[in-house]
Formats: sequence, C-alpha cells, structure tokens
Amino acid sequence: MTLSLSASESPSEALPRVANWHGLIHTYRHYLPVTDRTPIVTLHEGNTPLIPAPAIASEIGRGVQVFVKYDGLNPTGSFKDRGMTMAITKAKEAGAKAVICASTGNTSAAAAAYARRGGMRAYVLIPDGYVALGKLAQALLYGAEVLSIKGNFDRALEIVREVSENYPVTLVNSVNPYRLEGQKTAAFEVVDVLGDAPDWLCIPVGNAGNISAYWMGFCEYHQEGRCSHLPKMMGFQAAGAAPLVSGEKVTHPETLATAIRIGNPANWQRAIAVQEASRGEFNAVTDDEIMTAYRKLAAHEGIFCEPASAASVAGLLKHKEKVPAGAKVVCVLTGNGLKDPDSAIKFSENNFRQGVEPHLEIVAQMMGF
Amino acid sequence: MTLSLSASESPSEALPRVANWHGLIHTYRHYLPVTDRTPIVTLHEGNTPLIPAPAIASEIGRGVQVFVKYDGLNPTGSFKDRGMTMAITKAKEAGAKAVICASTGNTSAAAAAYARRGGMRAYVLIPDGYVALGKLAQALLYGAEVLSIKGNFDRALEIVREVSENYPVTLVNSVNPYRLEGQKTAAFEVVDVLGDAPDWLCIPVGNAGNISAYWMGFCEYHQEGRCSHLPKMMGFQAAGAAPLVSGEKVTHPETLATAIRIGNPANWQRAIAVQEASRGEFNAVTDDEIMTAYRKLAAHEGIFCEPASAASVAGLLKHKEKVPAGAKVVCVLTGNGLKDPDSAIKFSENNFRQGVEPHLEIVAQMMGF
Repeated sequence: MTLSLSASESPSEALPRVANWHGLIHTYRHYLPVTDRTPIVTLHEGNTPLIPAPAIASEIGRGVQVFVKYDGLNPTGSFKDRGMTMAITKAKEAGAKAVICASTGNTSAAAAAYARRGGMRAYVLIPDGYVALGKLAQALLYGAEVLSIKGNFDRALEIVREVSENYPVTLVNSVNPYRLEGQKTAAFEVVDVLGDAPDWLCIPVGNAGNISAYWMGFCEYHQEGRCSHLPKMMGFQAAGAAPLVSGEKVTHPETLATAIRIGNPANWQRAIAVQEASRGEFNAVTDDEIMTAYRKLAAHEGIFCEPASAASVAGLLKHKEKVPAGAKVVCVLTGNGLKDPDSAIKFSENNFRQGVEPHLEIVAQMMGF
Repeated sequence: MTLSLSASESPSEALPRVANWHGLIHTYRHYLPVTDRTPIVTLHEGNTPLIPAPAIASEIGRGVQVFVKYDGLNPTGSFKDRGMTMAITKAKEAGAKAVICASTGNTSAAAAAYARRGGMRAYVLIPDGYVALGKLAQALLYGAEVLSIKGNFDRALEIVREVSENYPVTLVNSVNPYRLEGQKTAAFEVVDVLGDAPDWLCIPVGNAGNISAYWMGFCEYHQEGRCSHLPKMMGFQAAGAAPLVSGEKVTHPETLATAIRIGNPANWQRAIAVQEASRGEFNAVTDDEIMTAYRKLAAHEGIFCEPASAASVAGLLKHKEKVPAGAKVVCVLTGNGLKDPDSAIKFSENNFRQGVEPHLEIVAQMMGF
C-alpha cells in the first residue's frame, strides 16, 4: 500500500488523498547531491503516471504485463525536467547568473523554464537555418534568449562550452553531470509503484543519457534492497540513427523521431556498460514501426506521445517473442505528443468527413446505425 | 504529512516514495457515483501539481501566498480529463458502444482518448469550415471520427443530442451530468495538499462548469470537516465573452482565449448560485491582460498554460487590492500551453538573434559580459 493515508484518526480523514508532491529532489533527496541549504528550483516535476497498456500487452499475450511511464506529463512536457531541476538547482547553488545550452528541442524548453524559475537568464545557441520558430516557441515563451550562429551544431557546442568555462554561466547540455542524477529518479518511481523492478525496461535511445540514468536508479535501489532484481535494459534506436546497434557513428542521422536523431551518442561507453551489466540489447526500429506504435498508443491506449517516445513500444512489439511469459515490462515515453502537432496531423487516420447533411438519419447512418 | 510512507519497518523502506496513483475515481470513489462493479476507464488523470507562484505573489505583496493548480498536466493536456474519466466510465457501465460530442477543442480530445481507451468509438460533430485541422489533430490521432456538418454549432449540438436519444450512443458534451462529478475532485486535491481550502479560488469561466464543479467539491469536503471554511470563488471571463459579468448573453463572443469564448454559458444559473453562496465575484479581463499574465507565468514562474488559463492569474492581478493580507490564493490553470503553439509563437518576447558570428567574445558580449 503506497497510497498515502492521513495521520488523523477521524473516519473521514482516513480516506486516501492525493500526496503533497514537492518535486523529485524533495522526495528523493536522500539519493541526490543536495544539502539542507541547497536552494531547490522545482516545478514539481516527476510523479508521472505509470499507466497499464492492455492493448499492447494483448498483442504480446502469454500473461505479459505492459506499463508505460508517461514522462510527457512533466511540467515542460518531457523527461528533461527531471535532469533540469537538478542541473538548475546546482547552478543556483553555485551562484550562476545564467545558464546556456545548444539545443533545439526539449532540452532548451526545460532549461529556459527552470532557469527563469530560478531567477537566472537562459541562453540557447543554435546553428543558423537549423530550426523552425515553432520548435523554439516554447523556450522563447519561457524567456530564453536564442542566438543563432553562423556555423554548424558542433561549433555551437564548442562555443557554449567555452562560454561556461570563461564566464559565470552554467552549461546545462547533456555533459552536465547533475542531469543524470535527476533523471535516475524515474527508475525510483517505477519501483515505488510496481513494488519491485520490472523484468524489462524498454527505452528510446538517442544520446543514451536516459538509459544510463535509469540504470543508475535501479542499481541504487537494488543496493538498498528496495527492489529484488535488476531489469533487462532494452534500448531502441531509430534505424536511421542507430550507432549503438551498428557500432559505428552515423554521420547524417535521419529519422522522423527527431528527439533521438543522434549519430554519435554522448554516453556511448556508459550505454554499452549498461547493456552488458543488464544483459540487455540495443536494437533498431524503422520509422514505419515507430509511427505505427505512435498511432496504436493514441488510438488503442489513449496515450499521446512524441514520435521518439514510441520507439520503446515499437521495439517491444518487434521483439515480443523474447519477452518471458508473465513478465512485467515498462516502456518509457519520454515526451508529450503535444510537442509535435505536425506529426499528429500527418499520421492520424484522418477520419474527417466534411459537408455532411445536418439530419439525424444521415449522421446516424454514417455512424453505422 | 500527506507524503506516503511505506508500511515496512526497515529503515531504507521508511523513506518517502511516490504514491501509487490509479486515477481520480480510484482515489475519490467514496465521493463519486461508482460501485465495486463499475468498469473504471482511466488514464491516471488528476494528481496534478499545485505549484507556488512566488513572482505573482510578490506583485501582490502583503504576505499573500499564490499557488497554481496546473491541470494542463492531465493526460490529454486539460482539466477535461477529470470529467471525461467519469463520463466515459459511466457510458461503459451503461453498455454504450460509442460516445459523441460537439466540440472543437479540449473536450473532443479528452472524449476521444477515454472512449478509445474504453473500447468505444468516439464521434465529434463540428460545423463545416469552423476549425483548422490543427485544432482537431489530437482528437483524430486518438481515433475520433469527425463529421463536419452543413450548419452552425447550435445545429451540431441539436444533432448530437438527437443521436444520443435515439441510438446507444452516450452524449459527453457538458450536459453530461457525470462530468462535473469528476471535475469536483480538483477541489479535493487542492484541500488535500494545502491542508485546508484556500481563501480565494480564481478560475477562468466559459461554460461555468468548472467553477460549479470546484464549488461542489469544496462543499462536500466542508460538510465532512475536511476543510474549515469555503473559499471565495472569483470567476474571470474574457472581456469579449463576459455574459456573467454583464448579465446578458453575448451573440458574437470574441477573445484570443478560445477555451472560454462562450456567449451563453450552459451552467449560468449554477454559476450565479456559486457566486452568491461563496460571496464571490465575476469580473472581466481583457485579452491584453490575459496575454500579459500568460507571458508572466511562462517567463517568471516557468509555467506554460493555455491563454484561457491565464485569465485566472490576470484577474487576480487586476483585483489584487481586494485580496486580504496573508491570504492563500489558488489560481486554476485549465490547459497545457502546448495545446496552442500559435499563441506561444505570437506572444513570446521573441529574443531570437540570427547570423551571430561564431566566436566566444562576440557571443559573450551579446550575453552582456
């Protein structure tokens, strides 16, 4: 029983009630590099639902249970908030006046939201011509200042590093060591809710930071006896951006799943270590398989995620024969589908009929009555 | 102390952990029209964060505390999920094979997600030429079937009602009585987290369903002694769609806050009763005031909501002199800002500088170093 109960003894007070959640640092501070004096910058991230996926499970059969960890319900719409609350908290503790990153996606939105909440400025560097305004709108609304440089993404990464080394500005790209610390709490939440670790953890892999963080979380809990075993870590990459599957850098990664369109993962060695230690696997899924899983999650489970998130479910379904009977499987959904409205328009079934005569009988007939 | 503690006695097990949340019906079933045999259709909605808003509070001063109830972190991105889990659960219990609504916004998305999760078909009726595909993309991806009729919105409402009266199809528009039952749980959550009711509850008002539902929730908790008082209910309408302020229907309501662009609220009488019973007020806020609050929430608090949601904060700031010193105020944010990317693009500060020379010194100079 992990639902909270009030301490009061009156009967009505003994009913279950919602937990007073103050964010993941508050809850898991015992496992995080903070002290009582650390100024916590939080949007009450974490505590995201672990939702059963019965339609996916029934495709697998054999008593397999499937859950999705819906991290798109974090405050800025992606799992990046878990790492960013830690990174920005430590930046504030260190006295930084500003943070900087090179990113066009979920990282820039999370960095901007937490930096502004913490009273810091947020700078985002991108290459000229790299991105549509729509992708940056969220970060801009949060108050990010975006500089678009003459140069490619690697040059942008060099400059943000140089800035952070020469000025009181904290780099919050994936090299920031606190981000994985925050992200590992997702594993804690999974174990807290299931009562143990799952048998399989299916996860989309781009930079391989999140798979490394989940593994850290499971291992820490396992060392404390909070789970009885460790999961097999099943990482899935898009076929056009699958360096961990091929073992080779991909110079021009291509996939509709933009959040995992990475040819040279920052956490390559860490990811290999996770795969070996967990007896896990890296496998590739095609864009078709990803978008099929994306539609299936929405239309059969009622869950709307980013295309990249659906790689975890696509991979599970592709490798369903390997899942042990009766196993518990958790698929990580890293981002909210609302982040990418264009994909929703493009890949929906488009059951949209126009010019319907406004009469009961005609409408009823179109509904199959 | 409402953070849950494990029942186990080992020291590591006594640490706080995330609650095992199964959705609002599960948690608040004692207050809802369900039995042990009711087939609950849930996406684990509810349990949304109540986030302090220190920047808003400091504009008011005098020791006033401000929190936002961020209901945009529900599974489909709006508070509609609270009502829809109840409406769809009861539809399933009654044996419905399909549900229907006339809506172009958050209701259609929620209806589609929950209906499909419950194994039912979801129909959405809209007037021809009424809406861009983008607004419906989420519902379509969830598997809604959209019929666009030759006729206006009132005709669409007539037809969905006729369909529900003549076929085994449940109407899930705002007339569905179970929706307010589900929505009232937001008030329960606010009281559970604060430990009592707030002094003021600021809320955007369109159809006036949500203000009615919150009031129901506060009253039920108050009757059970779970809060010591009832809040003053402060409803805010957009100036171009403010029938409850003027006392007159608005034939052509106009506001950027589309989610509250309603000229003739379905719950008009109920809303008046709430205002009278709570000694509350209805007031209007202009689109400028709404969009200023929208930007402020994002850039100062790190919270990204729909424009309509920001009406609650705009109204609070407009009437800040009336807030008693030391009062606790909760502002309801009904929807996720990601629902409306166009507004984010249009109303962000647009700190976007292109063509920056890729050199450390130049970038540092632009950052003010």
